[in-house]
Amino acid sequence: MFLLTAGFLLAVAAPRAWAASFPTAAPAAPAAGITRIDPTFWWVGMKNPKLQLLVHGPGIAGSRAELASYPGVTLDGTQKLESPNYLLINLTISAAAQPGRLKLTFTGGKAKLKYDYELRARSTDKSRVQGINSTDFIYFLMPDRFANGDLKNDVVKSTRVNHVARDSMYARHGGDYKGIEQHFDYLKSMGVTAIWPTPVTENDMPRASYHGYALTDYYHSDPRYGTTAEYAQFVQKAHQNGLKVIHDVVLNHLGSYHYLFLDQPAKDWLNQWPKFTRSNYNSSALNDPYGAGHDRDRYNKGWFDTTMPDVNQSNPLVATYLIQNFIWWVEYTGLDGYRIDTYPYSDPKFLMDWGRALLDEYPQLGMFGEAWVGSTAQQAFFARNILPPVDGFKANLPGVLDFQANYAIQDALKEKGNVTKLYEALQGDWLYEDATRNVLFMDNHDMSRIYSVLGESLPRLKMGFAWLLTSRGIPQLYYGTEILMKNFASPDGLVRADFPGGFAGDKSNKFTAAGRTAPENEAFDYVSKLGTYRRSHPVLQTGRLMQFIPEQGIYTYFRYNEQGETVMVMLNSNPGEKTVDGTRFAERLTGYSAGTEVVSGAAIPDLKSFRVPGWSALVVELKK
Amino acid sequence: MFLLTAGFLLAVAAPRAWAASFPTAAPAAPAAGITRIDPTFWWVGMKNPKLQLLVHGPGIAGSRAELASYPGVTLDGTQKLESPNYLLINLTISAAAQPGRLKLTFTGGKAKLKYDYELRARSTDKSRVQGINSTDFIYFLMPDRFANGDLKNDVVKSTRVNHVARDSMYARHGGDYKGIEQHFDYLKSMGVTAIWPTPVTENDMPRASYHGYALTDYYHSDPRYGTTAEYAQFVQKAHQNGLKVIHDVVLNHLGSYHYLFLDQPAKDWLNQWPKFTRSNYNSSALNDPYGAGHDRDRYNKGWFDTTMPDVNQSNPLVATYLIQNFIWWVEYTGLDGYRIDTYPYSDPKFLMDWGRALLDEYPQLGMFGEAWVGSTAQQAFFARNILPPVDGFKANLPGVLDFQANYAIQDALKEKGNVTKLYEALQGDWLYEDATRNVLFMDNHDMSRIYSVLGESLPRLKMGFAWLLTSRGIPQLYYGTEILMKNFASPDGLVRADFPGGFAGDKSNKFTAAGRTAPENEAFDYVSKLGTYRRSHPVLQTGRLMQFIPEQGIYTYFRYNEQGETVMVMLNSNPGEKTVDGTRFAERLTGYSAGTEVVSGAAIPDLKSFRVPGWSALVVELKK
Repeated sequence: MFLLTAGFLLAVAAPRAWAASFPTAAPAAPAAGITRIDPTFWWVGMKNPKLQLLVHGPGIAGSRAELASYPGVTLDGTQKLESPNYLLINLTISAAAQPGRLKLTFTGGKAKLKYDYELRARSTDKSRVQGINSTDFIYFLMPDRFANGDLKNDVVKSTRVNHVARDSMYARHGGDYKGIEQHFDYLKSMGVTAIWPTPVTENDMPRASYHGYALTDYYHSDPRYGTTAEYAQFVQKAHQNGLKVIHDVVLNHLGSYHYLFLDQPAKDWLNQWPKFTRSNYNSSALNDPYGAGHDRDRYNKGWFDTTMPDVNQSNPLVATYLIQNFIWWVEYTGLDGYRIDTYPYSDPKFLMDWGRALLDEYPQLGMFGEAWVGSTAQQAFFARNILPPVDGFKANLPGVLDFQANYAIQDALKEKGNVTKLYEALQGDWLYEDATRNVLFMDNHDMSRIYSVLGESLPRLKMGFAWLLTSRGIPQLYYGTEILMKNFASPDGLVRADFPGGFAGDKSNKFTAAGRTAPENEAFDYVSKLGTYRRSHPVLQTGRLMQFIPEQGIYTYFRYNEQGETVMVMLNSNPGEKTVDGTRFAERLTGYSAGTEVVSGAAIPDLKSFRVPGWSALVVELKK
Repeated sequence: MFLLTAGFLLAVAAPRAWAASFPTAAPAAPAAGITRIDPTFWWVGMKNPKLQLLVHGPGIAGSRAELASYPGVTLDGTQKLESPNYLLINLTISAAAQPGRLKLTFTGGKAKLKYDYELRARSTDKSRVQGINSTDFIYFLMPDRFANGDLKNDVVKSTRVNHVARDSMYARHGGDYKGIEQHFDYLKSMGVTAIWPTPVTENDMPRASYHGYALTDYYHSDPRYGTTAEYAQFVQKAHQNGLKVIHDVVLNHLGSYHYLFLDQPAKDWLNQWPKFTRSNYNSSALNDPYGAGHDRDRYNKGWFDTTMPDVNQSNPLVATYLIQNFIWWVEYTGLDGYRIDTYPYSDPKFLMDWGRALLDEYPQLGMFGEAWVGSTAQQAFFARNILPPVDGFKANLPGVLDFQANYAIQDALKEKGNVTKLYEALQGDWLYEDATRNVLFMDNHDMSRIYSVLGESLPRLKMGFAWLLTSRGIPQLYYGTEILMKNFASPDGLVRADFPGGFAGDKSNKFTAAGRTAPENEAFDYVSKLGTYRRSHPVLQTGRLMQFIPEQGIYTYFRYNEQGETVMVMLNSNPGEKTVDGTRFAERLTGYSAGTEVVSGAAIPDLKSFRVPGWSALVVELKK
């Protein structure tokens, strides 16, 4: 990389509101130089030979761009936008092109600017872009709140929040890539195989920027976590430790201090409204046969918040910009998968194009989206499903965060009999192409912590862990749940507390058994036992599932495979012990004679009947 | 018809339990004659030339069946079953065959039996089999409880319940076809276009037979409603009065005093279990990708109740018997549509074959099923939908009773803001091929009466009527809801009370305005006003729907068509009056300048904003 430094900022006035305005006079020749070109660099040998550069510089649109002869690369043309400060350059990079530097010149009047644009060689490291699937166990964390491994990047002078204040839930706390790296072993001890940090791209907002969902630059790491290069190194180190990395991305909106908002290329790069119009946060009208255009527009084009302008992905230039950006991150870092924030809020056609372009380049890339909707059918609408297209939209997203299963596990652990909701949530899988690509979770950064939701009941939480790690799909654990972190999400800052022991001066270190209380160790040990068992037993990763209609508040299911492995799980939502007759499960028990409870190691001498203590899970490895 | 009389009964011992047993010795020659042949008669000129007769008579299987020469008709063969008392005869009736009597002889040893089987001419009456669709407004009643028009059939000596006891909710009360006929004008005054009585086929059970869902003979009317011929006349009279008739049928089970249970043709005509096994009443396993065979079998083959043996429709002979029976009822009576009880409990492949056979013969036949399930997706699975087949099953049922909309309207009228559930229920229509074939209802014979559910709130009930008669689909009113009949369904007999005025000696006659209280007239008049408006305004029958995401507890939708008719409906679930800005609805309001509230006749001078009183519906016909 050249030209740009981490923490790069345009000198701008306060952000404009929601309507852009542009000078109508013809732009002057380039004066102050080229401030940036996106993508910041590129590679030879990509499947798609096309590349569109967005050049930014005061008055740059008034210049004539030329490319010095470079074998295998042609300049196909340039395109002006409404703003004089942007110029698009279309290139074709043939398969024959070699790595090097493209010599670009921009001539306007007497001024002449030069820019060396880098074409890199692609990495051949086989450990890159491994994909995310049901063999994984995801640990979801907030990098600002997990652990501070590098005190030097806590305060970055050039940013708008250039201080650390751990006593404020909305301020920066200092966590970073190094902090995560220092706890790879901790994660591995639980059987975790993949790390999902909240977005790491620059969020140079004046307040509450720690969560990462109001990005201000598509191409740079937030400097308070580390440089962009350090992020790439973080991914590499994770891979060396047998851990994958999921990159959290936002397609729908950006932060109102994003350079593309402060200095907009054209009005149609963002969805503009005569006055501020909030999204209705309701995807229903998209596929409602009776839906109103007004409701669809409010959903797709309304703003997520006053500080989160809505990106117009239906503009093909914007779509190209975004697609290139997300290919860039994969190619640069070797990341394993994307978690896509507010997935269905983006333009439906764009979502299809974006997914196709990424999977064309990286067929093995993991992808799952946040589609926080109320029904199985609506959730399946936003993933690969068995349904025909609706208004031309057919999702090509491999999986989604399974909110239906989330509602179900929360309910199931609250009240006797509600385990039926878990059964029903998975029954809805018939609508998916492959629901094992969906991500299971009990809580996340937007929700009350599950331990608090369950009234701080450790038995029920352990049942939840058992379900999370033995049901179908990709389990996701929110950081700290394993050490009984608690709180209700009102406000959400309360469920985004620091991991004790991750920061200098912490009273206790919950990363170690010695730093944890007895109940915390009980929770951690349960996750750890089952998580590592899962990692070493393919049947819990890729085995088939058979579930039985819950009876008497007990939900029974089996994971099994053709290698003869079978694990039986019983979740008892009664307050007292129950004895369950095994006759009903003959389909799966036949051929086995005994079993072992996986967590306790207790022997199950026969399979005629099972005793399950109240509010507990029985996870039984069957023996022939 | 010859041979059989209404109320025909085999002389049998107490019904066997759930396992059939048969003599293993070879049957003797026919001795006591032929007790019945099903179908009881047939027609020439049917699309399907095949006909399979089920001949019943003691020892009949030991005889040789022959057909005297009859132009256009051939005897293709006979088939014995496990029981000696049955013989199947396969016939082909060519297009050239004329009406008349087939002369059948059954020879066994020295015995020789003769039977004249009637082939009729098909009716050419154009008013027959009109179908049921969204132009209709259905009135659902229990014939035993609606009105007693014929005192002579109240007590039928040969039946097991041969008395009338109006003070017992489980006894017979005496209502009949004549009673319904006498109130055709009452129904028409509400705009009703179709009558759906609970099943009218014979239910000769020793107790609680009044509801009709435990049939004991597929081919005969329950004599306490009238003869089978009188039922056909009832349909004809209804048609002459501009009223259609929906025939309620049960495919899944029969009553334990059914002749096919008391004297079973073969063990595999019913689903047998080693010991009584109740259905799990849960369809989930049918399309659950993780479903257990045990759960599927319990659902499809388990018994609905101890007195309701489960019919094995996967037996092709049984399937043929049932298909012929339901073609027979259409051809004989000219009925307009079938309501299929416990639809998804039957064998999935059979359901497809049954639906196809009926629609092949009568493409215009109305059909909707009861699929009492918990989610939109599961409900859509049992109707024509946009989904691919699951395990070979793809429903061909045009519509279903819309339980999802039922849950929604009940919730919507209970609590502020729940109107969103109504919006969401219809949003789910994207899964159907055509959800306007679904039947909307607020309550039925199995549910607490809506007036009680709503705490006897007349304003909320009127909102419910407004929704029922202006939303999409086919509205269904349960008898008596229009006169504020109340009660909770515990037990269900309480919601199956007599219609006051339908029975000799009733204290009041609610069929007349004079017999109704002021609130009863207010309810009746509201239904009547909107029902007759609906009947005369195609826009409320077949117009398109556009619905807007509810805001502030108010649900707004429009019915509109290409003829320029538009009706706007606002349902306000707030306790107080609200003023609603019309701007959001520009898509549908543009081109109109004023309106009239349909029920009150009040003028709406402009469409800029609307005042909606608390807990009320505004139904506005828009004017250019």
